Amino acid sequence: MKLVRFAISNTVSYGVLEKNKVICLPALAERLNQSFPSTIELLITKGLNETNIESLIQRASQADLEKATFTKAGLNLLAPLVRPPKIICLGLNYRDHAAEQGIDPPNEPVIFMKPRTAIIGPEENIVKPSFVKQLDYEAELAIVIGKKTKQASICDAESSIFGYTILNDVSARDIQFKDIQWTKGKSLDTFAPTGPCITTARQIGKVGNLRIQTWVNKELRQSSITRNMVFNVSEIIHHLSRFMTLEPCDIIGTGTPAGVGFAIKPVPKFLKEGDMIEIEIEGIGTLRNKVAEENNPALGSDGD
Amino acid sequence: MKLVRFAISNTVSYGVLEKNKVICLPALAERLNQSFPSTIELLITKGLNETNIESLIQRASQADLEKATFTKAGLNLLAPLVRPPKIICLGLNYRDHAAEQGIDPPNEPVIFMKPRTAIIGPEENIVKPSFVKQLDYEAELAIVIGKKTKQASICDAESSIFGYTILNDVSARDIQFKDIQWTKGKSLDTFAPTGPCITTARQIGKVGNLRIQTWVNKELRQSSITRNMVFNVSEIIHHLSRFMTLEPCDIIGTGTPAGVGFAIKPVPKFLKEGDMIEIEIEGIGTLRNKVAEENNPALGSDGD
Repeated sequence: MKLVRFAISNTVSYGVLEKNKVICLPALAERLNQSFPSTIELLITKGLNETNIESLIQRASQADLEKATFTKAGLNLLAPLVRPPKIICLGLNYRDHAAEQGIDPPNEPVIFMKPRTAIIGPEENIVKPSFVKQLDYEAELAIVIGKKTKQASICDAESSIFGYTILNDVSARDIQFKDIQWTKGKSLDTFAPTGPCITTARQIGKVGNLRIQTWVNKELRQSSITRNMVFNVSEIIHHLSRFMTLEPCDIIGTGTPAGVGFAIKPVPKFLKEGDMIEIEIEGIGTLRNKVAEENNPALGSDGD
Repeated sequence: MKLVRFAISNTVSYGVLEKNKVICLPALAERLNQSFPSTIELLITKGLNETNIESLIQRASQADLEKATFTKAGLNLLAPLVRPPKIICLGLNYRDHAAEQGIDPPNEPVIFMKPRTAIIGPEENIVKPSFVKQLDYEAELAIVIGKKTKQASICDAESSIFGYTILNDVSARDIQFKDIQWTKGKSLDTFAPTGPCITTARQIGKVGNLRIQTWVNKELRQSSITRNMVFNVSEIIHHLSRFMTLEPCDIIGTGTPAGVGFAIKPVPKFLKEGDMIEIEIEGIGTLRNKVAEENNPALGSDGD
């Protein structure tokens, strides 16, 4: 099952994506006089899953279903989650990406966090302030946590996963490498495009063999497969939950494969205004975002 | 004005701390049939401030006030905020702390984030997993953001501040320095003690000259003054808000002065079970937390 958050007219809601249609779950529940969570975040936090959604849909008549269904083309898809308690990202978690930097993969996950204020959805612009000179993309499979989790064993870890989305871990390399701490260069507003949907864990099945690809202006830049991860999703959850409690709706970026702009030889290729980044992950879909330059001369004077 | 969050019997609420008493604001509002935010987070997010609180208190009769007032000794003070949208911390922001490590202060703030799951309140235990070998404290003046802020000028920055609290940026030095990225070693559950109150910006006045001190088992370890900060609070807000939107209830740790355990010569002094850390900041109060060892043998086998 694929869940999408969307805007239509002045309403924001969410539903199940099926081919080119979206069944709006709150609208359907209202028609059935059922109480149902009003956001994906509430759905996950309350511990609901596909079974609850299927049971709602099965209770509906064909007429009810039709009234609560929109064509996808008429909707603006939004970031599925906008208030995750935390966004944790792994660095150097693909062997091919570590290799392109001439670095050995870490023997334990190395992490940093992104703020929720960085989140944007599909088709929204990545805004490049004028002081950022080395803007780059990072395609990542992102775990969406489904339940409170502490000290999960590797065997139990999968049961903590609600589903998966795509995260573009947009990075200002000049800031990231100058600071040594990666956080600031990855925390700018709009630097966390996510979507286009959350594919549930049950639907996606095993995630150890998914194709993950990035195109910039239709040029293929990243093309790998999730089996190149150094730590797989179960190992990641096991490891992180030794240190900290994972909460429903936490987003965990599982690292990016080879092919990021700064590692391109002989000359790095950074993003510039108008560039279109498309990230496709098998079983989820394609996340598309364009780069827009922020034109604010006041910022430039204080730049680095 | 000092705001505290507290538990009494089975109730969690908040109020104004005045000497040894706390006026519970939701209880007072209920007696007056006034609607009033039920948490400090809602109070701040709705943009309310001392003036709204004073006007509520002034409307009350002496009898109403007495019924809504508790003695502080009968309450358990809690962390003032438990769901901040983000916790940003500055590294190396005191000249004396940079000097004790033999490092030049940075020419721009260097940041990392802590997750909200690390938050504990006054008198709660800092839990040290057995795999953490080098546990350390860091006393920090913490800004509580009062309003959505992007691209604040240095002159306007103070208007974004709701108030201040104390943050102990507890750090596992072995993990922090092994990872190079500081995040993981500072993100463990219980590694963000905060409190005991939020002192409003109006009450605290100028924060450029506050005494900040840490004792471990009554031994003075850190003793500095906020004028030793490399970047002052206005400069911090100005700088951060160039990169990202600050939101109401965001917590910003402004860095720690000299005297942390790992920098003590000739032999570092790390925290161990039973140690009591007391951090006092002028105008706010004292934040006390004890260290407890987590006894989970299953964790040890997977340690670093």
